[in-house]
Amino acid sequence: MPTVTMIGGGQLARMTHQAAIALGQCLRVLAGSPGEPAAAVSADVVLGSHDSFDDLLRAAEGAVALTFDHEGVPLAHLEALEERGVAVRPPSAALRYAQDKLEMRRRLAALGLPVPDFADLSGDPEQARAALLAFGAAHDWQIVLKAVRGGYDGRGVWLIDGDEAAALEVFDGARGGDTVLMAEQKVSMARELSAMVARSPYGQGAAWPVVETIQRHGQCAVVLAPAPDLDPETAARAQRMALELAAELGVVGNMAMELFETTGGELVVNELAMRPHNSGHWTMDGCVTSQFEQHLRAVLDYPLGDTSATAETVVMANILGAAQAPEMSMDERLHHLMARLPEAKVHLYGKSERPDRKVGHVNIVSRPGQSRDDVRERAERAAHWMSHGVWTDGWDHRADDRPGHDA
Amino acid sequence: MPTVTMIGGGQLARMTHQAAIALGQCLRVLAGSPGEPAAAVSADVVLGSHDSFDDLLRAAEGAVALTFDHEGVPLAHLEALEERGVAVRPPSAALRYAQDKLEMRRRLAALGLPVPDFADLSGDPEQARAALLAFGAAHDWQIVLKAVRGGYDGRGVWLIDGDEAAALEVFDGARGGDTVLMAEQKVSMARELSAMVARSPYGQGAAWPVVETIQRHGQCAVVLAPAPDLDPETAARAQRMALELAAELGVVGNMAMELFETTGGELVVNELAMRPHNSGHWTMDGCVTSQFEQHLRAVLDYPLGDTSATAETVVMANILGAAQAPEMSMDERLHHLMARLPEAKVHLYGKSERPDRKVGHVNIVSRPGQSRDDVRERAERAAHWMSHGVWTDGWDHRADDRPGHDA
Repeated sequence: MPTVTMIGGGQLARMTHQAAIALGQCLRVLAGSPGEPAAAVSADVVLGSHDSFDDLLRAAEGAVALTFDHEGVPLAHLEALEERGVAVRPPSAALRYAQDKLEMRRRLAALGLPVPDFADLSGDPEQARAALLAFGAAHDWQIVLKAVRGGYDGRGVWLIDGDEAAALEVFDGARGGDTVLMAEQKVSMARELSAMVARSPYGQGAAWPVVETIQRHGQCAVVLAPAPDLDPETAARAQRMALELAAELGVVGNMAMELFETTGGELVVNELAMRPHNSGHWTMDGCVTSQFEQHLRAVLDYPLGDTSATAETVVMANILGAAQAPEMSMDERLHHLMARLPEAKVHLYGKSERPDRKVGHVNIVSRPGQSRDDVRERAERAAHWMSHGVWTDGWDHRADDRPGHDA
Repeated sequence: MPTVTMIGGGQLARMTHQAAIALGQCLRVLAGSPGEPAAAVSADVVLGSHDSFDDLLRAAEGAVALTFDHEGVPLAHLEALEERGVAVRPPSAALRYAQDKLEMRRRLAALGLPVPDFADLSGDPEQARAALLAFGAAHDWQIVLKAVRGGYDGRGVWLIDGDEAAALEVFDGARGGDTVLMAEQKVSMARELSAMVARSPYGQGAAWPVVETIQRHGQCAVVLAPAPDLDPETAARAQRMALELAAELGVVGNMAMELFETTGGELVVNELAMRPHNSGHWTMDGCVTSQFEQHLRAVLDYPLGDTSATAETVVMANILGAAQAPEMSMDERLHHLMARLPEAKVHLYGKSERPDRKVGHVNIVSRPGQSRDDVRERAERAAHWMSHGVWTDGWDHRADDRPGHDA
């Protein structure tokens, strides 16, 4: 059976390895150390750096395709690999839009997709400063500043809540640190959605049901699948937008299109990721085909799997490192969780706990007759227990990022 | 997180490793070579033999529990490991009944469980021959001869269809080759069932729905979950028998109790296995908790998971090596299967193909409104294609072992 190489040894590679095993394969991972989540469980580990062309080349040797656990690989390296005949999936020509938010915004705008108003702050510092001042004033400083590259899980995003001085401070600090910025209009949003699709080189596309994502501290905390009470036409539109964009960009593998649903019921594209994505973890226990199997099928140019949900509601909640380490070990917490919720599907990443670090997730799949709130309550309770070692009765909305707050 | 060691690098260890990953662990396997199914995918492989005490000791070092992919480990080694404080799960005191069919029959009979009439042919050759002649005559030679140890997948089982001379030939040949035999009355059975349970050291037990197993060439070919049209009281009785026996024997981990349902509607115990089992592969896609996760939970003394089925019908069909190797590679066959049946859940073991060798399995899970025959037809078609590289329209009952034929 073929070998696929994944660049990065994080949890996405770890869970892709689980799917690879079922397909008769062993995922090869390029990891920085043997203790990384995927390196700790795969028999085929290449130690090295995604920044090193030689390491990438070594990891690609004999593999039928090269794919990614994260967006951090220098584009020039990928182009050089492609010149040598390596099947880079997604190809560099597509991945550039997931690596560079400014390029992504420009391309989406050119394609007529709904994006927030944005400004390029990447050029000459004086001109960029002037552009920021003009853009901020035009939007009453209801804007968001973003690092064009490298941000994730809330990092590289600054919410400017009408505060011009704060915006200039971020701008000056970022320019001092050589971080290239862009500005975006803050969208008046009701909630965040994610439309996940997969696409194969052959051109086959498949869309999972559209989900709602709930952010806390700027990163995904909870996913409700499918998105509650989403107008079927809006859902179909989101899926169509993602499928068409994936085809337009030549994406191979998974693509998550993160969307804002505005208070007016419109959709606005927020971010793109071209890999397995946190908003698709629910598929591991709630879909015929999980996002990890599907990503492999796509990069191998296999026909894609059935993306139907297998239950009415699935809720995913991330397990995060706590600010104060719980007294009980993770092993003991898992033990207690299993006693309380024998139906909880736990996925641990084998990572050490640090505050707000994603170290695992829990899926709860509805049984007939169970309400969405009931399913969510159990998922949130399970994740809170695993994160903090404290039982709660449900979930606390006060922890959620306020709509419109997160970018 | 804790480390569990599994003795044996076969497909059961491979699939247990998938489950271990979700629990934040990496399964350690003792394998004979790096190419074995589990060794090829796990980061923690001890190369060695299950017949070597030193290798077993090495594999156990630092692990919280030692468990099994097969029954082949010498009991004396396990007792010696237990004396050194290794948590052998199931313990040697239970595993002996899965290793030795004669001990198992005696113990089950003593416990009042329904077993076929049987005769001990293990002692002095002259006395054993006399015992066989008496037992055969008493049952009109409608008997089955079995190797007391080491048989599996139809090996070590001889069906004596009323033919005294054939029975004596098997007996003399086996004694010449030092195989210890026993004789059993042939049961007039309607079909074969399997009642799978798990039990933890704490004493918690959990039973999956009882399934029907269909044998071909003496090995499991297809599993229908749940067993079609099984009287609910009979199903409950089978589950109770398995749970009570597991408790009585002190089993830790999974136990499969293979049963005959007689033409009169009675249950007779056929075999016991104390590990993940072919009759439980359907749980990977059709149950809240798969048998592999459950086996780990049990040997770790975690609370057990929910054993509910997640669909009305699940059919598992084994992929077997073909007598004549298909022209298409396994990879190509998988490609075609995915195109035809995007809902098929394929599990490949990374094994080379040899005639009748189990190299993978397919699960088909029913969606609402799909009939059992429809689900079975797709599972059989998928497995037949993967085995032979030939599409069929359905399944051919002529290939099934005739009821009562298989032991």
